[in-house]
This record gives sequence, C-alpha cells and structure tokens, in this order.
Amino acid sequence: MTPSAILESALYVDDLDAAEHFYGGVLGLPVIARVPGRHVFFRCGDGVLLLFVAEATKVPPAPGARFAVPPHGATGPGHLCFAATSAGIDAWRERLASAGVAVEAEIEWPRGGRSIYFRDPSGNSLEFAEPRIWGF
Amino acid sequence: MTPSAILESALYVDDLDAAEHFYGGVLGLPVIARVPGRHVFFRCGDGVLLLFVAEATKVPPAPGARFAVPPHGATGPGHLCFAATSAGIDAWRERLASAGVAVEAEIEWPRGGRSIYFRDPSGNSLEFAEPRIWGF
Repeated sequence: MTPSAILESALYVDDLDAAEHFYGGVLGLPVIARVPGRHVFFRCGDGVLLLFVAEATKVPPAPGARFAVPPHGATGPGHLCFAATSAGIDAWRERLASAGVAVEAEIEWPRGGRSIYFRDPSGNSLEFAEPRIWGF
Repeated sequence: MTPSAILESALYVDDLDAAEHFYGGVLGLPVIARVPGRHVFFRCGDGVLLLFVAEATKVPPAPGARFAVPPHGATGPGHLCFAATSAGIDAWRERLASAGVAVEAEIEWPRGGRSIYFRDPSGNSLEFAEPRIWGF
C-alpha cells in the first residue's frame, strides 16, 4: 500500500498578484481557484500547484467552520521542479529570458538529463528537469 | 507553453530518520536517494517527494562544486496532498490508525470527493484526497 501520486504540491509566496503574474503569465499555468490575500491555485497536468500566503494559512479555522482545513504555513524559499523534455528546457530558457527571469544554475546529472534553476518573485527555487534524471 | 507536470515536490523536516520511518514505513514510499543530514527522496508514482533538512539546503554550494544546486529551505509546517480513491482513503485511515497517526480533519468538498488530513513527524500537514475534488 503506497500513494499512487502526488495530487497537490504547495509553495508559500508573499505577493499573490506577483505570483499569479509569474506562474499564470510567464509559466502559463491555468488558475483554478483564487482567494485574495490567502491563495491562488493552478492546474499542472494531473496535479495542482497551491500557492499560499503563510500568514493567512497559519491561522486555525474558526470553530464550526464548514471547511476546517488544518493550519500550515512555512517561511523561507521552498523548492519545486516541473517536468520538461530536453528541447522543452531550451524553450523555457528562452521564455524565461524574454520575461527577464535569470537562470540561476544549469546542471547535467550523472545518469543523464539536465536541469535549469530559477526563482519565482518570492524567491522560491524552481526547476525544470528531465524525468530521466531519476531513471524514469 | 505550460509545464506538463510537477516532477518534484519538497517538504522540510527536522529529523530525517523519523521522516524516513514515516514516509517509507507508514506510507510505504520507496526511497530513491539519501544523504545523511541533508535529505531523503522517495518515488511517488511519476513524481518524486523530496524531504530536506533546511539547515543543510540553505547553505550555498561551495565554489566550483560539481552539482551547484541553488540554496533553498523553509521553516514551519508545509503541505502536500496524495491522490487516493474513496476506498483508498478509508484504507489509509485504518493504516494511519494502526500506526498511531491521528486524522486531524476530514472534509467533504462541494463538488464531490473527500479529504483526510494528518501530520508527519515534523508537523507538515499531509492529505489524502480524491482528484475529483478539483473536477479532474
């Protein structure tokens, strides 16, 4: 018995508008939910990327709240990696450059495959990588 | 142009041994990489769950390091959700109970589908949810 997939991955951001511009505009992810001051969620393939404002999600739900989601919220730069082909990584490099986003690092991995790293507006470390870096 | 999938999702933990016992033992995820004091990584379906010790990953790579991964590292409870069927959620509830892990909340969502929430040993908020809560 083991989980079949990760459905939701979360990062924390300090400016939701800047985050939506970046993830929705530069990366092109479709928004699927938005609560001003608290979160914006995006679909990514079969999964969901959750961007939260930690100051809002750290607050425990009110007693008797209809959707009493347990509190959470982290500070400091998190990390998330999107899957891409080798050609896709080259295309993303151009797309990021045209949006003024610096590529912070590029790594060739020992068993084959490549990653590029960049930052979102809140400083989270994002990556595009070929799934074969994990032997997939 | 939009990312096709999330390849890696990250959480931060304060005790790697406890984390490996929990994610590997209780949740049954296979370990695919481990560096004592820094990280343990698990395969989950077509993705990878990265568990890091933020104090280690916050340190910038040494000049000239072969794999100069940009620093990152967050503190405070993060969030991640695994996909499950409705029957799977019931089975996970039993598995968690038998491992002494409390279910912190259970939510029925407006468009159908259910979630259960629990904590990992570091306090991260974990969830099992049916993908249809997102209309998938």
